[in-house]
Formats: sequence, C-alpha cells, structure tokens
Amino acid sequence: MEALRRILNADSVAIIGASRDETKRGYQAVATLKKSGFEGNIFPVNPRERRILGLRCYANVEEIKESVDLALITTPAETIPTLLADCGRKGIAGAVIIAGGFGEMGGQGKRLEMEILKTARTHGVRLVGPNTSGIINMWTGLNLVGLSDVPKGDIALLTQSGNIALHLITEARLRSHKGFSYYIGVGNESDIHFDEYLEFFRNDEKTKAILIYVEGLRDGRTFLQQVYKTSREKPIILLKSGRSSTGQKSAGSHTGALAGISEVARTSFERAGIIYIEHPDQLFPVAETLSSLPPIRNKKVAILADGGGHATIASDLLTDLGVEIPPLSDRTQAKLRDILPHNASVTNPVDVAGGTDSNPEIFAQCARIILSDSNVGGLLIAGLFGGYAIRFAEKLRFIEEDAAHQMGKLVQKTGKPIVLQSLYNSVKPHSLELLRYYGIPVYESLDIATRCIGALSRYGQYISAYKYKTNFHFNWGAKAKKKALRIMENARKESRRYLFEHEAKELLRCHGAPATHDQLAKTADDAVRLAREFEGSAVLKIVSPDILHKSDAGGVRLNLENEDQIKNAFHRIIDNAREYKPGAVIKGCLVSSMKKKGVEVIIGTKIDRQFGPVVMFGIGGILVEVVRDVSFRVLPLSRTAATRMIDEIKSAPILNGFRGSPALDKQALSELLLTVSEIIESYPDIEEMDLNPVIVHDHGIDIADARIILKKIPSETNPVD
Amino acid sequence: MEALRRILNADSVAIIGASRDETKRGYQAVATLKKSGFEGNIFPVNPRERRILGLRCYANVEEIKESVDLALITTPAETIPTLLADCGRKGIAGAVIIAGGFGEMGGQGKRLEMEILKTARTHGVRLVGPNTSGIINMWTGLNLVGLSDVPKGDIALLTQSGNIALHLITEARLRSHKGFSYYIGVGNESDIHFDEYLEFFRNDEKTKAILIYVEGLRDGRTFLQQVYKTSREKPIILLKSGRSSTGQKSAGSHTGALAGISEVARTSFERAGIIYIEHPDQLFPVAETLSSLPPIRNKKVAILADGGGHATIASDLLTDLGVEIPPLSDRTQAKLRDILPHNASVTNPVDVAGGTDSNPEIFAQCARIILSDSNVGGLLIAGLFGGYAIRFAEKLRFIEEDAAHQMGKLVQKTGKPIVLQSLYNSVKPHSLELLRYYGIPVYESLDIATRCIGALSRYGQYISAYKYKTNFHFNWGAKAKKKALRIMENARKESRRYLFEHEAKELLRCHGAPATHDQLAKTADDAVRLAREFEGSAVLKIVSPDILHKSDAGGVRLNLENEDQIKNAFHRIIDNAREYKPGAVIKGCLVSSMKKKGVEVIIGTKIDRQFGPVVMFGIGGILVEVVRDVSFRVLPLSRTAATRMIDEIKSAPILNGFRGSPALDKQALSELLLTVSEIIESYPDIEEMDLNPVIVHDHGIDIADARIILKKIPSETNPVD
Repeated sequence: MEALRRILNADSVAIIGASRDETKRGYQAVATLKKSGFEGNIFPVNPRERRILGLRCYANVEEIKESVDLALITTPAETIPTLLADCGRKGIAGAVIIAGGFGEMGGQGKRLEMEILKTARTHGVRLVGPNTSGIINMWTGLNLVGLSDVPKGDIALLTQSGNIALHLITEARLRSHKGFSYYIGVGNESDIHFDEYLEFFRNDEKTKAILIYVEGLRDGRTFLQQVYKTSREKPIILLKSGRSSTGQKSAGSHTGALAGISEVARTSFERAGIIYIEHPDQLFPVAETLSSLPPIRNKKVAILADGGGHATIASDLLTDLGVEIPPLSDRTQAKLRDILPHNASVTNPVDVAGGTDSNPEIFAQCARIILSDSNVGGLLIAGLFGGYAIRFAEKLRFIEEDAAHQMGKLVQKTGKPIVLQSLYNSVKPHSLELLRYYGIPVYESLDIATRCIGALSRYGQYISAYKYKTNFHFNWGAKAKKKALRIMENARKESRRYLFEHEAKELLRCHGAPATHDQLAKTADDAVRLAREFEGSAVLKIVSPDILHKSDAGGVRLNLENEDQIKNAFHRIIDNAREYKPGAVIKGCLVSSMKKKGVEVIIGTKIDRQFGPVVMFGIGGILVEVVRDVSFRVLPLSRTAATRMIDEIKSAPILNGFRGSPALDKQALSELLLTVSEIIESYPDIEEMDLNPVIVHDHGIDIADARIILKKIPSETNPVD
Repeated sequence: MEALRRILNADSVAIIGASRDETKRGYQAVATLKKSGFEGNIFPVNPRERRILGLRCYANVEEIKESVDLALITTPAETIPTLLADCGRKGIAGAVIIAGGFGEMGGQGKRLEMEILKTARTHGVRLVGPNTSGIINMWTGLNLVGLSDVPKGDIALLTQSGNIALHLITEARLRSHKGFSYYIGVGNESDIHFDEYLEFFRNDEKTKAILIYVEGLRDGRTFLQQVYKTSREKPIILLKSGRSSTGQKSAGSHTGALAGISEVARTSFERAGIIYIEHPDQLFPVAETLSSLPPIRNKKVAILADGGGHATIASDLLTDLGVEIPPLSDRTQAKLRDILPHNASVTNPVDVAGGTDSNPEIFAQCARIILSDSNVGGLLIAGLFGGYAIRFAEKLRFIEEDAAHQMGKLVQKTGKPIVLQSLYNSVKPHSLELLRYYGIPVYESLDIATRCIGALSRYGQYISAYKYKTNFHFNWGAKAKKKALRIMENARKESRRYLFEHEAKELLRCHGAPATHDQLAKTADDAVRLAREFEGSAVLKIVSPDILHKSDAGGVRLNLENEDQIKNAFHRIIDNAREYKPGAVIKGCLVSSMKKKGVEVIIGTKIDRQFGPVVMFGIGGILVEVVRDVSFRVLPLSRTAATRMIDEIKSAPILNGFRGSPALDKQALSELLLTVSEIIESYPDIEEMDLNPVIVHDHGIDIADARIILKKIPSETNPVD
C-alpha cells in the first residue's frame, strides 16, 4: 500500500525514454506533465539527449541525485528488464510500463511478462501495466496519459481500455459537472491488480465513487473481498465486457457443465455491492449520480412529469429495474391537488397536465410535497423542465432558475435524491446547470435517467442489507474434523481422487448433515444382515474404485423388500459391474435404506477459474437438466445467501407447498447449504461435491447420494485465497 | 381512404375557433400554418372576429364559398357536436379535434366521445382525435401542430403523446439528417385508428419508414393485419409503453390465467414484422437507420474498430441482439493483414491496432475488403473515426473526408449497410456529415449503434421469411362441419356454455384430430360393455352439466383393468358427484381407453381483449404451472408458427429425445396446433378450448382430455374481425 501511495501521489517522476521528437510518447509525456501543472520534479532520462523541453536529461535513473518516486517507461518491451533493475537500485517505488507485446500476445510475450515481473520483485519495484495507457492523479497534475483535457472531480477511473476511458472522459467534459480524481490504466495487471487500486481508493479522501471497465479479472475472489470492504463506503460502478466470448468451459462433472461463468460473475458482483452495468451509455451517468447523491434505501421512487408519455415510459423502465412506484399518501395527494389543475394526475406518477406551463416554479412545490411523503425515497422529474423559457415564454427563465435553487436545497435538506430528465438538456439552459451545481444530475435520455435513479435504489438496498453479506473470505480448515481428514487421507493412499459414497456421507455426517450411515456389504449375506438394521426396503449400490457412474454400470438396485430380492440384487450388481468394466476392483455393495419420496433437489460445488469455490442449487430432473433453472453463489455462504439461492430459482414454488401439498423443509435445505459451505471451507482438497439427489420432505431432508472429488494434487491451502 | 387522403393532403383548411389572442391555440394555428408555407386556402372561423392575421374570418364554415377539405377545431369539448354537423353540411372530409375531456376522463367524457363519433358518422365527417396534438404534412406545409421547427424527411410519425413526439423531433433536428413526412397525433383514436393511417402511409410515396409511439391499441387484430401488409414494404418501428401497468387479467380458465398480455403483444408485433423497441433512446435512431439503409438478410455483421474496448463491447451487445459475428474468410483476412500492422486482429471483430492512426483512409480500405466477403451482411465501425484530425493531426481531416466518400459509395455499390459509432459525433466533424449524406447513420453511443445495425438484421430476417407468415385474417366459418355445429347447437339448447368432453372430442375428430371416440355409459353394466370394445384398461369420468372440474368432484377413475373395478368405479364416481354437488344432473360416465404413457403437453386458446383468439402451448405439470414455460401466438397459425411455438419453449429438449429416449412426434403436435387454429377459425362461438393433457408419443399423440367453452352470447361472426 505504501508503494502504491508513492506511485499514485508521486512527488518526482523519471520519464525513461524521454524524447525531443514531438511525435514520440517520450516527448508527449514530458510535455503533458508540464502542461498539467505537475509541481513535483520531472527527470527526463535518455542517454542520447542533454535537455528536453528545458529540463536536464539524464543518461539513466541512477545518475539522478534527488529521490525519485516513480518511473514512466516508454521504451519497447525488450528494454524493460534492464531498466527495472536500474529503477530498483535507485529506490524507485514503481514503474508505469507503456509498452505492449507481453502477455496479451501470448507465447513469447507471456514469457517476457513473467521475466519483468520477476525482475521487478527482485528489485522491489511495483509495476503498473505493462500495456497500459498510463495513470493520472488529477489533484497533483501527475498526468502520465497523453490526455490534457480531463476534468477534475471525485470519481476514480480504473480501466482496461484506453479508448473506453477516452469515451468516459469526453462524456464527463461535455455533459456533466463531474470529473475524475485518478485515472488508472491497469493494463495487463502483471503486478498490481484491481484489488490493490481499490484499497487505495477506499482510503483516498478525494475519491467518492469508483468506476471500473474490465475485460478480464486476474483473481476474482481477491477482487470481491476488496470490493466487499470498499463498496459500503464508496459506490463501485463496473462494466465487464467479454460476456459473449467467455462461453462455457467444458467440464466433466454435472455441476461443471452447468456453471455459466458470467452468471456467477454477475451474481457475485452484485452480492459484493457492485453496481453492475451492461450498457456503456449508462456507465458514466450512473457513476456521476452515485458520486453526487444519497442512496435510496426503501426502493420507492416517485415520478413527476409534465407529459403522460414520459410518465408512462418512466414507470415501465423503473419497474423493469425493480424499483417500486408507490402510491402517494392521501395527504400528499390533497396537497398536490391544491396546486395542480383538476385534470392533473396526483397519484404516482404525478402528471401536472399543463399546471406548470405558466409557472415552472410549481415543479419545486410539487417536489417539496412529494419528497415530504414518508413513503417516497427519491424523485424522478421527467419532461421539459429547463425548456419553459424556450417553449412558452422567455420570462419563465428566471422562474425556472428559482425552482432549480429550491430543488437543489430540497435535496440537501431532505437527504432524498432527485434525478431530472429534460428534453432541453443539450441546449444547456442555466437552470439545468444550477441543478448540477447542487448535485442533481440531468439527462436528456429517459433510459439513462431511470437507470441512474434505479442505481441509487440498488445501492441503497445493498447498504441496508450489508450486515447480512458474506465477506468472501474462507477460514481454511478451521472447522476440519479429524475423522473426515482421515477419510481423505485414506482415499489418497489408495490413489483415489474421489471418496466412495459411504465415505462422502460419513464426511457429511461429521458436519451434522442428514446423511444416513450406509454400510458396505462384501457378500450377499452381509447385505441381508445389514438391511435388517433398518425398517422399510433397501437400496444396493456398487462400490468400486474403478466405477464412478454407478447407474451406468447397472450398479444400483432400488426398492428391495425381502431377503431374496436383496440377494439377487447383490449378485446382479456384481455381475453387471464385472461385465461393465472387466478387471475392476469390486469392494462390494453399499446397503442403505430406501428414502421416503419427496422433491429431489441437487446441490453441487466446483472450483471456478476466476472466483474459486462456487455452489449450485436446483430442483432435480428436467428443471435442472433441461430448463437449467439453477442458482449459483460464490462460497462461503451467509445465512441470507443460502435462503435466497433457494428462493430465487423459478421453480421455488414447488418447495413452498405446490398444489395443496404441505410446504417443504426449506429450513433444513438452507442448513445443508451452509454445511456444504463449511465443508468446502474446511477441506481445500475438495475439487467438487455433488449431492444428487437430496430428497426434501415436509419435515427434514435425506441426502440420497453424495459424491466428492478431490483435487489433482493435494493442496495445503487453497491457491485462490 | 379517400377521406383520409383529403384530410392529410388537404388543400384548404378551416380553423374553427381562430383567435386574435396570441396565447390561444386558435391564433397559433393560423400563425403556424402561414409560417410553414402552406399554399392552400386558410379559412379562420370565429363569429366574433372579422379578420385574423390578415385573413377574412367567417362566422361559420357554411359561410365559406370555396370548398374545404379539413377543419381544425380548437374549441372546447361541449361545442364539438354542433360544429361537426356544420362541417358535414359543408362537405368537409375530416376534423382534427384538439380538445380533451373525452374518453380519457372516463364517465361523462366517454359519453361525450360516443356522441361526437355518432354525429361525425351521421354527417360523414372523419375524425382525427379528439385529444390530439394535431397533424402535419411536411410536404405541403399543412402544419396543425404548434411546432415550427420540424425537419422534413421520409419518416411518418404516429404518436399518442405530444411530448414524446416533441422529443423525437428535437432529436431529429439536433442529431440527424433525417426528418418527417407526416406527423399524426392519433389522440383518442375515436374514429380513425392506427390501421387506417398505416394504410395511408403504405401508399404514400414520400414515406419510407413509419415510427409509432403507442400507449394502448383500440383494435390489435386489425392493426396487425394492416401491419402485415405494410411492414414488408416499409419498416415500422414501434414503442409501446404501459407494459408495467397492463398486468394480468384475472381469468377463470387455466389458459386465461397464464396469458401475459404484453408477451402476446410483443410476439405478435414481431411476427407481423414490427421492429419493437423498449427503450426510448433507440426509437428515432432505429427509424433513421431503417429509412436510410438496406436490411441485412443473413444476420451476419462484421465489426471494425480502432480500439479493443469498443470491439469487445460491440460483440457483447450484438450477440445479445441475436446478430451473428461470423469469422472472415481466409482471403479476407489475408487482404486485411496486407494493410494492417502485425499486431492487428484480422478476425471478426477487426481491430486495426493503431493501423489507422496516421492514415484513416485505411478504414475505407478495410470496409471494402470486409464487405466483399460474401459471408458478411453489414458492417459496424466503432471508435474514433471523425476525430483523427482532433486526436492526431489536423491534416488527417481531408483524408477522413475522402474515406467518408469512399464508404458512402461502397454502401451504394454493395447494397450492404454500414453503421458508424464515433466518440467525436458531438463535435460534428465534416467527415461524419458526409457519411450521413450517404445515408450512413452515425451515433456517439455504442448501445444505439449496435441496436441500429441489429434492427437492420432483424428487419432483413423478417423480409426473408415473409412468405411463411400469417396475415392475421380469419376466414370465419369456412371450414365448419355440420356435425360440429349440431353439437354446439345442442349445448345451447340445453343452456350449456360448454361442451361435454365426448362432444369436444367429437368436434376435434370432425377436423381430423386424434381424439378417441369415447362413449357415455348410463349404468355400470353399460360401462363394462363399452370397455370391452377396446384393448387395455379403461378410464371412467363423470358427465354432468353441473360439474365442470371433474377431478375436483372425485369424478375420474383411471387404470380400470376388469369388470369389478369398472363397476365399482362407476358407482363411486356417481356417489362422489352426488356428494360434491347435491342435485346435480348426472348423465352418466364417459368410458375411454387408458392412454399410453408419454410426455403430457397442454394446448389452450382464449380470446385476448386486444388481439382476439390466441393459442398457448406448454409441457404439462410444473413446467406450465410453476415455471410458466409456455409460448403464445395470435391465431390463425401458419405452419411455421406452429413449429416455432413448439420449439421455442425452454423445455423443448424434452420432446427432442431427452436422456436417450426417442424423439417424440412433434410433427403430429404441430398438426394438432394447426387443427386447433382451424377449429377456432371455423366456430366464432368458441370462447376457450383446453386440450389438457395431450399425450405425445414417439409415434402419434393422444388427446386425453378436451374442454370447450362457448361465448356468453352466441355470435354470428367474431366481433374482432
């Protein structure tokens, strides 16, 4: 963190590769720094020059007498290792590496990137990039990006694309009062990842909101952990592209095949408090709004419009975003009726029906009345405000400006946000400038205005529910049981990468899960004896280290009601197994009781490449296999998340007492999900776990089958945490 | 049509309620007409004035000697009936009624609206409105709306909201080269509905695209029929608001409860060739694009960008829109490699990787190479084009302009569209103006640019598949069978509003549907005798005009294998029915054969308030009842639609041979859907039909149960067609 602070707040910068050629990045870098009013020391470095833009030029960084915080390296990829070593010896905290030609090119580039990272670590130099557009600290004028017209403000920008950043900056300059505190082109994230920058911005006083454009994350879990800490203090707005190309990893297990990566990403981003954006048009406006206005905690928004069309469309769009448009109280309606014409609509949406045509100050009066309704959390104003002087009479200009002042103060006083949509925004009337001065954002687009107030509502909901959220941290092994560890050890000894069903169930029982104590029968008589220990009919399943998919091998027999059936079944299973896989080691058959009928659900875990362990839940059969009606969470789970992931599948009504049948034991199911979470946390050695099916009854659940697969190589701790 | 032609192309207009007071609509109307260069006669009408704006003022329309095509009435609601009678006597073709206070206010207003409609019909005057913002013919200067800066062009605008129209006009003026041919504020659609205007625009040479903003349709089916005729000739772009408030009609029947109105609307709009828009930001741009460029028929679009970020986001957005981003041919890639730097990406998306920095003409070269690839149907260019002079060097301005000319001609030559997204659009560089001159639309927003090229693709697909579409017309009763009509007559005689199961099945059989010939047993012995006529076990079901839901009454017994079981079942069913509804008329039990097991599906029809008869399809059980995995179509069905509605449910894989079971007889299912369509078309008297379940086998299907409900009042023809 200290190194990053020295980098981003650098007092002195060496420009390695500085140049007198105006077309070169090494010239532009020095020129931009001077133009941006950077007050620290600038040290051009180029052995072939003596002075650049009036500054002394050094042959190398070690020649500089003063201390240097940061180096900007503009020279080609192959020169970097030597230069980094120089930087290290000089005590420079970090280097911004512009050059491309590294990991993004694959092969040789990847090797070169590994090399510079190694050199940097050896010499204690942190890296921004490589393949970065640079960094800017807007408050010190430390501008290492070739852009000179970046507006200053309180939004920190983290980006993996220079062009998208340029887009956002242009938008800020042309259509907003807001600007940026820092700009970070993260580049290939070779050394410093998103999470470290996030941590810096969390502690940075100048930054009120963090805007992220990301194409791929190096380490999703560490990122989420940092997001979790940051998002309750400062809103994080993120657009992740590359959704369409990520595709589905081909994976062997059932759960693996179903895990839509982008669905996992989306869900976990939102759980961590990120405002997740899919449309680039919304990115800057949402950041602008969240950095300017208080969040809405009750999901309830009122709409005030001077035209039915805008009011109706706004209702549609807000409803799509999950925002409620609550009825106004009788008192609020009566007050509105007092100042609006008789044909106005005083419910929600409020339509002034011409009531403001000759006096737009009525907008401010309506806003005051509406925001004093305790049921209303925020207000969207839509239509022509700002254009009354243009549309009706010139003298209305000053009345609109007065109304703007009143609305601005109203937001400050009530702590409830207003977002305004105006058809006349592009004409830039003074009244709208005034609104922005008070932090009320104004958009010409109704799509964007609704999305912005929707984001205030979503962020408010996150903040309200914060204490029920997981922090995405594992306490690896803390709750591991000795017995369970022995089971896994034993499997490893036998060179198995999976546990037998009875072992998996045993492990589950160690953590209090309702798995039956199934026993291994080596002979048909054994099986008969073991089946006597419980009531009802029996189930026999093959146990063989060489047979993973028991049903496929004809290795399962259900509903065995008497001795003959059990004996026959035992022999048939063994015969089938021998035929299915000649030479297979056969340990015998597992004897268990036939479970009561109920609704079958599936719980599975796997290791996601970006986010580490994730869990999936769904109702068995076609709902999982055909309709793919499943929910995902990054582990570990909070109690709330366990409940939610049961309720959020579309077929959840089946568990709630479908067609007059009693409600099923969702409580027990949610406990099982928490147990699964605890087990994954306890044994980093588990690669996948499948409980399929789990049978849910009105009281209690049965784990009918359980499968646990271990990692290829035993791991002491999980690599992703 | 002739009347509408006289209205919209009026040579002479009476302004009833003309005024000298500048704040009055009656003054503005005369002033705007004069200002808009209207060359026809203007006749102000006001008994209290002699001259208005230099024109002679008449006491009433009958005083005017010359012929008058159209009256604009600006006076209040209650004056309208008398004035319309005057207009009729004068031979005026139509009246535009500005006043509100009619149907939109409910109660008294509704009655007044009925009255003016009656008066208008009596006197042969057609009505635009009431409660309309007016109409404009941009080509004659007939401007009856208080807007003076509407740009002229080839887009016809039909709107139910003046403010939304104002929004679209402002957008056209500020950000486009396009404009409007006509403006129609449809108002309450009291007399002239959307479909008549559509028909006019279909035949209007000045109009190339039709843009519609609608809140509610008076008659969805007639609208669809007109859309069907129009959309293949001219694109129709429509935004319908009020999605969130339409909600679900509470309906008694199973199908009724599931019919999401907005889903029906959306599906049928798209089937009729409408480009359906949900976000207002997209409305004008999509209309602009569709009116300027040829559609893309093969769904395949290439992306050309000068930055990875834009390329990646564009890929995501286009994929979301169902557009394919095909690989480029080897030859195309080789040619691109020849002119781009080695680190450029020459697959699709193409990223020039700095290859255009010093020569933006390369864009035109790339465009030529890409569009000559036979696999590419259109091109999206994204990034900085138009800003090279600003971002790199001033002299590049002329090179960009040259490139713009080349790209414009390329579109004309190849017939393949280009849409361009430029960060520099708002700076209005000349090169982008040139692109627009050639009909290439330019947007700053990547969301909008992708949506526009996506719309070209969707429209192209519609045009290609046009011949397989339904025309939404019923040939009422054409295929009715005498036997079926007798069954319905008989039910009416018995004052039943539904057919018994065996009657419904008989009716289905009349049209060749695979319903079994079930027979009514009056006694237990009858039942035994009838069951002997078929193989396998029997099913008994209660037949009573007083019991509609047979299962609820304990009136169904399955799997009856011998005489005793059949006899017992018969008595139990009769007893149950008597207990369930004492005094119920009991006709006996229906005897049918137990159907083979298979996948159960549901087919249901109902009458939608806006669109008339619709059909629903889904797989039975939880998939319909919990997951609501169903598809809808407005009837009648084309063969393609029947196939599509089976394939488009999420659980369709179940029918395709799920888990190694054989593929089921979708062919028979699709025939049944067509039969259902034919039956609904044959008997306008049917209100609802439920085939639930239909059992689908690998060969053939069985209609296990059928229910037909008749309309409250027998209808000769269906009111909606």
